[in-house]
Amino acid sequence: MKIKVSRKAHFNAAHRLYRQDWSDSKNNAVFGKCNNPNFHGHNYELVVSVTGKIDSETGFVIDMKVLKDLIKKEIENSFDHKNLNLEVAEFKNLNPTAENIAVVIFNKLRPLIDAKNELEIVLYETPRNFVTYSG
Amino acid sequence: MKIKVSRKAHFNAAHRLYRQDWSDSKNNAVFGKCNNPNFHGHNYELVVSVTGKIDSETGFVIDMKVLKDLIKKEIENSFDHKNLNLEVAEFKNLNPTAENIAVVIFNKLRPLIDAKNELEIVLYETPRNFVTYSG
Amino acid sequence: MKIKVSRKAHFNAAHRLYRQDWSDSKNNAVFGKCNNPNFHGHNYELVVSVTGKIDSETGFVIDMKVLKDLIKKEIENSFDHKNLNLEVAEFKNLNPTAENIAVVIFNKLRPLIDAKNELEIVLYETPRNFVTYSG
Amino acid sequence: MKIKVSRKAHFNAAHRLYRQDWSDSKNNAVFGKCNNPNFHGHNYELVVSVTGKIDSETGFVIDMKVLKDLIKKEIENSFDHKNLNLEVAEFKNLNPTAENIAVVIFNKLRPLIDAKNELEIVLYETPRNFVTYSG
Amino acid sequence: MKIKVSRKAHFNAAHRLYRQDWSDSKNNAVFGKCNNPNFHGHNYELVVSVTGKIDSETGFVIDMKVLKDLIKKEIENSFDHKNLNLEVAEFKNLNPTAENIAVVIFNKLRPLIDAKNELEIVLYETPRNFVTYSG
Amino acid sequence: MKIKVSRKAHFNAAHRLYRQDWSDSKNNAVFGKCNNPNFHGHNYELVVSVTGKIDSETGFVIDMKVLKDLIKKEIENSFDHKNLNLEVAEFKNLNPTAENIAVVIFNKLRPLIDAKNELEIVLYETPRNFVTYSG
Repeated sequence: MKIKVSRKAHFNAAHRLYRQDWSDSKNNAVFGKCNNPNFHGHNYELVVSVTGKIDSETGFVIDMKVLKDLIKKEIENSFDHKNLNLEVAEFKNLNPTAENIAVVIFNKLRPLIDAKNELEIVLYETPRNFVTYSG
Repeated sequence: MKIKVSRKAHFNAAHRLYRQDWSDSKNNAVFGKCNNPNFHGHNYELVVSVTGKIDSETGFVIDMKVLKDLIKKEIENSFDHKNLNLEVAEFKNLNPTAENIAVVIFNKLRPLIDAKNELEIVLYETPRNFVTYSG
Repeated sequence: MKIKVSRKAHFNAAHRLYRQDWSDSKNNAVFGKCNNPNFHGHNYELVVSVTGKIDSETGFVIDMKVLKDLIKKEIENSFDHKNLNLEVAEFKNLNPTAENIAVVIFNKLRPLIDAKNELEIVLYETPRNFVTYSG
Repeated sequence: MKIKVSRKAHFNAAHRLYRQDWSDSKNNAVFGKCNNPNFHGHNYELVVSVTGKIDSETGFVIDMKVLKDLIKKEIENSFDHKNLNLEVAEFKNLNPTAENIAVVIFNKLRPLIDAKNELEIVLYETPRNFVTYSG
Repeated sequence: MKIKVSRKAHFNAAHRLYRQDWSDSKNNAVFGKCNNPNFHGHNYELVVSVTGKIDSETGFVIDMKVLKDLIKKEIENSFDHKNLNLEVAEFKNLNPTAENIAVVIFNKLRPLIDAKNELEIVLYETPRNFVTYSG
Repeated sequence: MKIKVSRKAHFNAAHRLYRQDWSDSKNNAVFGKCNNPNFHGHNYELVVSVTGKIDSETGFVIDMKVLKDLIKKEIENSFDHKNLNLEVAEFKNLNPTAENIAVVIFNKLRPLIDAKNELEIVLYETPRNFVTYSG
């Protein structure tokens, strides 16, 4: 009997969609206005979910405060008010699409979550665009 | 490693819950005020999700703009500001419950989404009533 | 020292924008797809606010439950799951734009709210379109 | 071909996180400010989802009104404006974490939902903390 | 030329509507289930707005971070995870209705906001019930 | 008898808070992480409201579609997916705080709205930070 525990967080960041190994015209053709070389940005909303058994002692799968602090330390502190392309190491050679950002967040958090629990990342780039990843 | 990409859209439409082959009293007994012969309506909120592998070239499962335009062309243009019972061919003989509308939307979009990707439809009839369908 | 007390309610209704005394082509030119003769519809969200002094006995301007029940009796029961053009007397000869619906709601509630208090109506036709009226 | 039908409800309640068999200092160490002996409270938002086949007669998996009334009778009437620790029998000896509340709601509703349909409970303790349980 | 700057915050608290100087039956008659002696609770959402001239140096009316920290120090730290009736001095002899809580918050913040600026408090007791106070 | 008509729109943009005539250390001291020289960004939500008399012919204060198109042409096309500091002329020498962006939007739209109607701008920088300006 597993239950999923979810915590919502957010960060504001600048990015552009862009590949260094493509010509400007190809970047424009594929990424359109998201390729603006001066960047644009988003209020990213992030939902991190951990699925596991309820600890019969505490009634928790994972303490929400622990999960909140983990997201703050590992994700918000690295991504909030940053330029993802220029300042976040993982996107040095990786295009910061919503898909890729979600995978990076998953990979950063996965080793820090008890291996017997499942992890899911939902990332809203805008209220109308979002992605869901669970490894 | 699959990831789900979601795009939210909306349309406003009139409908009534009703079966032509039932008596008025049976329609009333089963569908209540939703059977009003003069129709009522909703702001439908629609979330279309496509699940597949991230293209390593673009970082996309599917370009959100392509998905947005597809929803606009196939669903919003046919459903928005329409009377579902009278003006949308699929509901000529099909009761436009939230369940049936979601299935119709799925069936319209499924052939247009790459067959190796999964498709999911979430349809909010109101902020408190919604359905989820993935074939 | 006045304070404003607000209660949110909702109703689902069909309508069309239309004037009987105009030609079809003029109705179409002015109201576009909102003039669909088969109607379309909305989940209307309604916020009714009453501004007055706090009663020192109860700590209320107006009991929220009283306000909730008043909205239900006077507005929801008349408008919910109805066709505004065909079934609501006030719109027999009045175009049911968001503006006019808000005025009608105000006029229905004003006599029922203590005359020394102010009344304000906010009506959301969609999450992106809304109007505010206070007489 | 199954489809999931969801209905959103809510209730306001007081609670504290606490185990009678633990010392005060252990309760404080584990549950922090959530262990306030004078209680705190939440506006719980509840989404109950039933997954099954669409009935070809009605176009429903389950009539939303039936589901709404069931939630009101079984959950809202027992939990709304209550102190979960003191007034809800299920939490006499069970810590009312979001996880445990969701399991209790599931167990109360499961016998009342057609056995061939699946049941899922999503419970928001705050807009940022929520849990999902499906047995 | 004045502009209003708003910051949203929140706190979770328990309360009951109740007057010590009334009989139980009068408290029940007036406050209904909100008078539950075991308390119930809410996720209060709070919007604090400061209206004034834009400082031509900074482009701020008030630094949002300063306003955020002020709300945290003065309101969240005193109210969050508390029982308003038992643990917040201002409600020792004041019924903690939404109206009275908003006035208390206003009175706590007013001396701390530059006297030439206006202050407004919006307090959501639930997503459907809220009050607005500006002195 | 005036009524306020509101239309919600949005745009995604990058910005930094920064004055060219200040030293880096002063910019940092005043604007903190909002001064990141590599920029950060937001999903700005914009509510434009026009207050005036209801036209007795149409039932409109202003046609919502006209207002929507005006916002798109004048604001979204200039601001969406842009770097406000580098690409929007009005911010060449003006710090793009939420306050200043709202004033710029007001000043761009004011000449295009009938002079007998009032104009109000609400700009959400994040769901928790927003400003309101009406000239």
